[in-house]
Amino acid sequence: MINAFAVMQAKGALQAFQYDPGPIGSTDVEIDVEYCGICHSDISMIDNEWGRSVYPLVPGHEVIGTVAQAGSAVTTLKVGDVVGLGWHSRYCMTCSTCMSGDHNLCLAVQPTIVGRHGGFADKVRASAASVVSLPPGMDKSTAGPLFCAGITVFNPLLEFNIHPTDKVGVIGIGGLGHLALKFLKAWGCEVTAFTSRESKRQEALAMGASHTIDSTDPAAISRRANTFDLIISTVDVTLDWSNFLVTLKPRGRLHFVGVPLQPLDIPVVALLRGQKSVSASPVGSPGTIAAMLDFAAFHRITPEVEEYPVSRLNEAVERLRSGAARYRVVLNMRE
Amino acid sequence: MINAFAVMQAKGALQAFQYDPGPIGSTDVEIDVEYCGICHSDISMIDNEWGRSVYPLVPGHEVIGTVAQAGSAVTTLKVGDVVGLGWHSRYCMTCSTCMSGDHNLCLAVQPTIVGRHGGFADKVRASAASVVSLPPGMDKSTAGPLFCAGITVFNPLLEFNIHPTDKVGVIGIGGLGHLALKFLKAWGCEVTAFTSRESKRQEALAMGASHTIDSTDPAAISRRANTFDLIISTVDVTLDWSNFLVTLKPRGRLHFVGVPLQPLDIPVVALLRGQKSVSASPVGSPGTIAAMLDFAAFHRITPEVEEYPVSRLNEAVERLRSGAARYRVVLNMRE
Repeated sequence: MINAFAVMQAKGALQAFQYDPGPIGSTDVEIDVEYCGICHSDISMIDNEWGRSVYPLVPGHEVIGTVAQAGSAVTTLKVGDVVGLGWHSRYCMTCSTCMSGDHNLCLAVQPTIVGRHGGFADKVRASAASVVSLPPGMDKSTAGPLFCAGITVFNPLLEFNIHPTDKVGVIGIGGLGHLALKFLKAWGCEVTAFTSRESKRQEALAMGASHTIDSTDPAAISRRANTFDLIISTVDVTLDWSNFLVTLKPRGRLHFVGVPLQPLDIPVVALLRGQKSVSASPVGSPGTIAAMLDFAAFHRITPEVEEYPVSRLNEAVERLRSGAARYRVVLNMRE
Repeated sequence: MINAFAVMQAKGALQAFQYDPGPIGSTDVEIDVEYCGICHSDISMIDNEWGRSVYPLVPGHEVIGTVAQAGSAVTTLKVGDVVGLGWHSRYCMTCSTCMSGDHNLCLAVQPTIVGRHGGFADKVRASAASVVSLPPGMDKSTAGPLFCAGITVFNPLLEFNIHPTDKVGVIGIGGLGHLALKFLKAWGCEVTAFTSRESKRQEALAMGASHTIDSTDPAAISRRANTFDLIISTVDVTLDWSNFLVTLKPRGRLHFVGVPLQPLDIPVVALLRGQKSVSASPVGSPGTIAAMLDFAAFHRITPEVEEYPVSRLNEAVERLRSGAARYRVVLNMRE
């Protein structure tokens, strides 16, 4: 049996919940969970914001632990390996998208906490293909958020061929945005943080931003016309996107990794003259996760986390909901 | 003096108009105009749709002719060269965008008929950098539309690294769309034409489409889910863009070269799961125009045109306004 924590209904509290995972699949591994980050997507699933939640629901998709069992066909991992598991726990492995290395874009991809149980538990199962080894020596207590928040902001840098000579803006300095700043600093880019919170300005500068701009000040934004090659937006609120498009250089891109609740309202002329693009992307492939971990280890990039013992799980979830966490909440599953 | 045809006020008729172009600039050429295409942008400027028109206004930016004079610093063209001139007639030549070969995205770019006089005339001037030689033997009477309609749809194929293995959709089969079909067929792509007009279906198939879909039939469109790597939209009407996004494969792009009057209304989730992009672009650089002309000559790609003598100029403009032209109207400036 797996000893987990589940919510039994939308917006419910987490409570002890046991389930029998059955015999292990031949291509799967079972992970002894040591740490698990809490992500805003866990809260969206707890609250059934997307209408996709099935209860009992065990959240948790920023898992760090060790391989406890490996299915008979698993060749890439062995018992005792230190690994992580993120938003996706299974890919079809055979569609043209998977065969091209874009597993995270597979149409049949299986999210870790949609219709199956996640990492708020002593153990979790996932396909070996979706589980990535940590580089030797990486701190297990802070690595969890790399597997969702981290890969989400790292992925566009590789996907869109971002160069160290590029100027990049990051909208929203939270769980995702603070990691974007750290990655971009290591990438060699001149980085501007857009944040509405004065208290985060100094922190943004310390984490890698060279400049900060108040994201709610239209005049301050439009003064940066023709500045950025890439802007990554991590927020879920609606901003004046046309004004941000003005700040892009020719060929620039406004890329969304957070999902604003309202549709984008963008005149084509705002894209046309500078051949600008608007796009969005979900996490990254296992290959890109491995590249990110290697890059993070080399550059000593670690998420800023607040650690909670699993015994204070509901308090930890409320802390994340409050928006006050600096910058990610991680559960220690053994305390 | 240059003998031109101008409108004196918004939506006016074209009438004879003379102007003195002054001494030729050192980096400019003067072209003896032989043919000039009529583009919907000429009509937009005649009507002052964009609020940028200055009267008297001489339209015409799909110019074919021969070099009559060359400024003292011109080294790339000589008197007698057969050339074309499109939407842009001057670039700053020194900004980082120009220095990177993206002259069409230069922030100081000079459109041929905005604040200066265009090709509905016996002569027109332009910077030598914006004037491109026709390949030997190219038919002068049909080449004009390549310089605006043609480059506008050709440019994205190079810019976005379109492969012959890609599946491409073209929305709107008119002046731009029919050339997109011809280029894409020569590019080796499987092409689908989206058109609302039954009469254009057979013509689209003859020009290079492998499939046609009624662009106003939502069910027919959504049946092509996960089909296209690229869709090029040439229309100025608002369609259900979210439905077209469904038809894109992962990494697919919906690219606008026509400008719908209403802003795009796109939910980020429609882009997110498949890492999709929305973008737009204006014409192309002189380097890309030269590559297009070479490609068109090799593959014997010619615009479908209806030729009018300049003596029937106003009738020719009305023909384009009617939407009935197959597919572009060209003026013979010597008849």
